[in-house]
Amino acid sequence: MHTAPLIALLTDFGLADPYVGQMQSVLIAAAPGVPRVDISHGVAMGDVAQAAFFLAATLPWLPPGAVVLAVVDPGVGTARRVLVVEIASRLVVAPDNGLLTLALAHETGFRAFDATPRSVPASATFHGRDVFAPLAARLAQGESPTALGYALSPDELVRLPGLAATRQGDVVTARVLSVDGFGNVATSCDVARFGGRLSRAQVLAPVARRLVPAVTYADLGPGEVGLLAGSQGYLELAVGGASAAAALGLARGDRLELFLPLAGV
Amino acid sequence: MHTAPLIALLTDFGLADPYVGQMQSVLIAAAPGVPRVDISHGVAMGDVAQAAFFLAATLPWLPPGAVVLAVVDPGVGTARRVLVVEIASRLVVAPDNGLLTLALAHETGFRAFDATPRSVPASATFHGRDVFAPLAARLAQGESPTALGYALSPDELVRLPGLAATRQGDVVTARVLSVDGFGNVATSCDVARFGGRLSRAQVLAPVARRLVPAVTYADLGPGEVGLLAGSQGYLELAVGGASAAAALGLARGDRLELFLPLAGV
Amino acid sequence: MHTAPLIALLTDFGLADPYVGQMQSVLIAAAPGVPRVDISHGVAMGDVAQAAFFLAATLPWLPPGAVVLAVVDPGVGTARRVLVVEIASRLVVAPDNGLLTLALAHETGFRAFDATPRSVPASATFHGRDVFAPLAARLAQGESPTALGYALSPDELVRLPGLAATRQGDVVTARVLSVDGFGNVATSCDVARFGGRLSRAQVLAPVARRLVPAVTYADLGPGEVGLLAGSQGYLELAVGGASAAAALGLARGDRLELFLPLAGV
Repeated sequence: MHTAPLIALLTDFGLADPYVGQMQSVLIAAAPGVPRVDISHGVAMGDVAQAAFFLAATLPWLPPGAVVLAVVDPGVGTARRVLVVEIASRLVVAPDNGLLTLALAHETGFRAFDATPRSVPASATFHGRDVFAPLAARLAQGESPTALGYALSPDELVRLPGLAATRQGDVVTARVLSVDGFGNVATSCDVARFGGRLSRAQVLAPVARRLVPAVTYADLGPGEVGLLAGSQGYLELAVGGASAAAALGLARGDRLELFLPLAGV
Repeated sequence: MHTAPLIALLTDFGLADPYVGQMQSVLIAAAPGVPRVDISHGVAMGDVAQAAFFLAATLPWLPPGAVVLAVVDPGVGTARRVLVVEIASRLVVAPDNGLLTLALAHETGFRAFDATPRSVPASATFHGRDVFAPLAARLAQGESPTALGYALSPDELVRLPGLAATRQGDVVTARVLSVDGFGNVATSCDVARFGGRLSRAQVLAPVARRLVPAVTYADLGPGEVGLLAGSQGYLELAVGGASAAAALGLARGDRLELFLPLAGV
Repeated sequence: MHTAPLIALLTDFGLADPYVGQMQSVLIAAAPGVPRVDISHGVAMGDVAQAAFFLAATLPWLPPGAVVLAVVDPGVGTARRVLVVEIASRLVVAPDNGLLTLALAHETGFRAFDATPRSVPASATFHGRDVFAPLAARLAQGESPTALGYALSPDELVRLPGLAATRQGDVVTARVLSVDGFGNVATSCDVARFGGRLSRAQVLAPVARRLVPAVTYADLGPGEVGLLAGSQGYLELAVGGASAAAALGLARGDRLELFLPLAGV
């Protein structure tokens, strides 16, 4: 039994309330010596799609063996499943509500387990602390997911519809997954699949704009609207020296149509 | 001498300024190897009552031997005492301004020590870093509170008046201790004393509303106003799919009158 | 080779996005066992001057051997250098954009190295994770800065003009470096040089106000405007029980003229 190199936390709890600290304390008590990393606690309240993006973007940067505790759980108290998913040598503990949609889109060789507790937890309203954190701690201590739940087939997992981008000819339909603190707009076009040819790219809807293909933000002159392969693994809209979200009138969750021709210049 | 399993920090410093980082650095230098947990640095500026709630709510989730560094200290620079309080096998370092009011309400077997420094600290304005953190580090390294201060009798400690809920017949007078990021309203009615019978509960003032007794948020239909035993150890007002604070027009510090009949339906 | 006692992070990334978590994960993977401290991730976007203040204010509180990872980097993707600076027994990794201006003003015996990578990093837009963090981890593992870059002469480093305060007779020209969460106004007058005589101090511009010399915030009556030697190493404007920034109409970056006579009362 190996202990995990780290436990990474992802929630929509914010940092003002003592909720994250109570989860961290439970983790330290049950898995002493395992470092903890906060991916984010600033997911918009109940926004499972944004959490799915943060998770998929961060998984490749976690060392193998890492445990992720992902709790964006608007269905707390309902019959939704508690999942443990082994994916690309990491273990994710999360409610079965689609939070893994984008992470699973990249991977075929994952294993999923139903670890829904049979007994009543300490509180009915804070499963992050009382259900998910103790489970993450046991995994971080080296327990096998097979000992903590029973296997699910991959197609039993809840997936969010319409999240991954789809192509019809030269037109790609995507979603705004997130707007970062700098105003950069993350689309749901993953770089591996859509990042090849950006030279004639345009936004078609909800606004119409030509896009400057860019490698880095500094390639864009003031006010220039660009498209680049973002550091989070998805195509990103950016504007030189300004907020792309403001310039284009885009917000988290918006539907996008992009012109991304398969044949380049 | 045992080292502490963790040091938990609670302040109103916010996270934008470098204050918390400087405290953390002092803790690492003086108590290397002891993990640190942030309970919250988002206590409303100078709101000792909200800090008292966060502390009382979090103490039971800290492992025995944990040290708490609680600095909400509007009186920095005045003659207020610096306390070390041993309570339920945890050690709390805090200014003597009422921050322990709710934690002490649950416990009788605590010991309090006056650890006010006799010498002048490095700065006159940042005792969190220069007085409280070094003290917490020494406790975390295994020093005894008896070596760091002289004993106080329990009734010498400052307590905030009107914080704990009181009952007159079927009417309970309480305070709004905090409103969380989801809009749930924590009252000062602790679950152990007031949580038994919620079936005919009402808010009487400042608004009049019937309350649906609930176990979890999912029990409440959209817009339905409920009362439940919250995960923080106090009765909580919640609204299905919305902010209870907004729906009821309640804010932190408000006085509440609740109808909580001793005899159930 | 000694490992560092801690790695301290300073960025303008905010905490809502997963950027800081990804940096932290890279640090844990490459420098396991070294604790990490967040100085701040709330530097105003691209405000190198505010970051320079946070860095200079925090360096003295880090244990010797500490590594600082400072990434406020509006020039990411341009040809700006990546620096490693050894200063007062700490190692700072930062872009060469003036972030060290105030830290260097205190010190003469520092050594600077150009550690700009020759190969292309994993992403073009997130050098914090892909360039600066791996470099900080190697330093924290005990590698020498001489092995990671070539020496620069001190005068080759970029410095922000107009940041440090200057005196002409009794008048000192300074900048507002930061306004903290309590509304206290940090000026660029460092205490070592300007902190001696506050007894007849006044603000001359942009507003005219007499200042009460104070040692601690509690010395100021309600609404009283004071000047004190702040805990961050710089003179600070404060108002009793209120925000000095609001009372004086001051904001980060404002130019200040202070009357600070060399001869006391």
